[in-house]
Amino acid sequence: MDTFFYWFDHLGVAVFAVSGTLLAFRKNMDGFGVVVLASATAVGGGTVRDLILDLPVFWAYDPTYIYTILAAAFTTILWLRLRDYIHQKTLLIADAIGLAFFTVMGAQKALEAGFPAVVCVVMGTVTACFGGMLRDVLARDIPMVLKGELYATTCLVGGSVYVLLAPYTALTALLAGGLVTLLLRLAAIRWQWSLNVFHEHNEGHR
Amino acid sequence: MDTFFYWFDHLGVAVFAVSGTLLAFRKNMDGFGVVVLASATAVGGGTVRDLILDLPVFWAYDPTYIYTILAAAFTTILWLRLRDYIHQKTLLIADAIGLAFFTVMGAQKALEAGFPAVVCVVMGTVTACFGGMLRDVLARDIPMVLKGELYATTCLVGGSVYVLLAPYTALTALLAGGLVTLLLRLAAIRWQWSLNVFHEHNEGHR
Amino acid sequence: MDTFFYWFDHLGVAVFAVSGTLLAFRKNMDGFGVVVLASATAVGGGTVRDLILDLPVFWAYDPTYIYTILAAAFTTILWLRLRDYIHQKTLLIADAIGLAFFTVMGAQKALEAGFPAVVCVVMGTVTACFGGMLRDVLARDIPMVLKGELYATTCLVGGSVYVLLAPYTALTALLAGGLVTLLLRLAAIRWQWSLNVFHEHNEGHR
Repeated sequence: MDTFFYWFDHLGVAVFAVSGTLLAFRKNMDGFGVVVLASATAVGGGTVRDLILDLPVFWAYDPTYIYTILAAAFTTILWLRLRDYIHQKTLLIADAIGLAFFTVMGAQKALEAGFPAVVCVVMGTVTACFGGMLRDVLARDIPMVLKGELYATTCLVGGSVYVLLAPYTALTALLAGGLVTLLLRLAAIRWQWSLNVFHEHNEGHR
Repeated sequence: MDTFFYWFDHLGVAVFAVSGTLLAFRKNMDGFGVVVLASATAVGGGTVRDLILDLPVFWAYDPTYIYTILAAAFTTILWLRLRDYIHQKTLLIADAIGLAFFTVMGAQKALEAGFPAVVCVVMGTVTACFGGMLRDVLARDIPMVLKGELYATTCLVGGSVYVLLAPYTALTALLAGGLVTLLLRLAAIRWQWSLNVFHEHNEGHR
Repeated sequence: MDTFFYWFDHLGVAVFAVSGTLLAFRKNMDGFGVVVLASATAVGGGTVRDLILDLPVFWAYDPTYIYTILAAAFTTILWLRLRDYIHQKTLLIADAIGLAFFTVMGAQKALEAGFPAVVCVVMGTVTACFGGMLRDVLARDIPMVLKGELYATTCLVGGSVYVLLAPYTALTALLAGGLVTLLLRLAAIRWQWSLNVFHEHNEGHR
């Protein structure tokens, strides 16, 4: 089971490295910008998770994560060189897959360390959202996490599914939590779901 | 006394959650943006404080902080639905009250953990300023902490008052430090105090 | 040797405090903005390094770092009052010197704590880049770390030189690693080196 979690974690890191590389491409950055943006996206969320849970920071004790990031970024660069154009959707989908992986892995680590269930759900969300938030702030994009379309909410729902099922069946819980996160996010992107809590208002921004 | 600190901390979290919700309203975000911005503002400063002081991160061991944030954000949303407009001042005042709470709570936690007095004052300032900084960076506003009007300085002064008085009288020190922070900040906003250390200069940005 | 490292660390902090003050000047901030930006630049990288390596945060246990920052910022303000104008280059050079100091000090601390060599190189880079990244994000500048000119890459190269030489000769390794970082970065600025990994492409941003 631990081996499974380990590979699951590597997959999540790789997918977020891809999403960082795609944004670097859209922003016309050079090779060095790619490495920074891919790494920040890939390890940002897990680093904050481990710091808050007071666990050893995952990549500091296992350099293979660094190789995973480099491999993922390099492969994406090669693929991007074959085309002049990527759809905005491609970036959103890579990001959604990363969200799904990190939500369940974040909640899993917190659960294993014995934190309260509500905190585990929040930690899954923090793990999933922080890397992408760092990516968007660095690249001076509007953070996806604030653009709506259920972003953080899909993590809260998927993380809750995982935390509720985990005591019974670790593997099914992992897959169910991840799938719920992914499908909810893709559906929200497809049909542009959002939740308007405020009335229309018009206000000069200072 | 510890119970008192505990409620004081919850009040600070609630006030900053309100200020995050108000900014989300001004930026026309939806319900999900509200939750993210309210939470980041409310726990950002205290999380960084606990990480630097190597203490357990406060909300990770006590989920009631999460309920406080949700309750504060929800109440603010209901209140905002009754009006189309808020004054810019409302946000500044909520932020100032949050500053006052977090300055003394940050300094108090550092003092209790036995850090040098200067570090305690700095930690009060970091605790108070970091949540709002995260809020403004995420919402792509100019960070208040850099806009002048004594922002971080009020925390340094209020924190010093607390640290100087704390050995004699815990409760009075708390109230005095908080009040000094709050009144200094409100006065600075009211009369637009700033400290120009540079001569006028005109420079093309690159 | 430890005394030497200690002073080396203080010098790096002072240089980054200067670079934060210079950016505050270019952005027409007031005295309070200066203190915030100088401090964030100066301690940002080292704080993240110590958190990730699970070491005590350097400035929390030794308030002299805070005095170093204040002295550096104050001296820079006095110097800036004598002139109306600074070259963009001045800021880039101060930043490059800071990079060189922090790259080797970051790698050194990780090496001393027994982390794998690859992780030490990455930690040097994180230590060197994070403070400047925080400075640029707060001041709403395009982060230097993403603008190319080998920024993070000079740290990776300089850090590798240090980690390779360190087992043989601590002091020479420190100087060699620092000099390689500095000269590579200055050369990259001078001749505008960059590494274009993508073909030219033209894409509407959403």
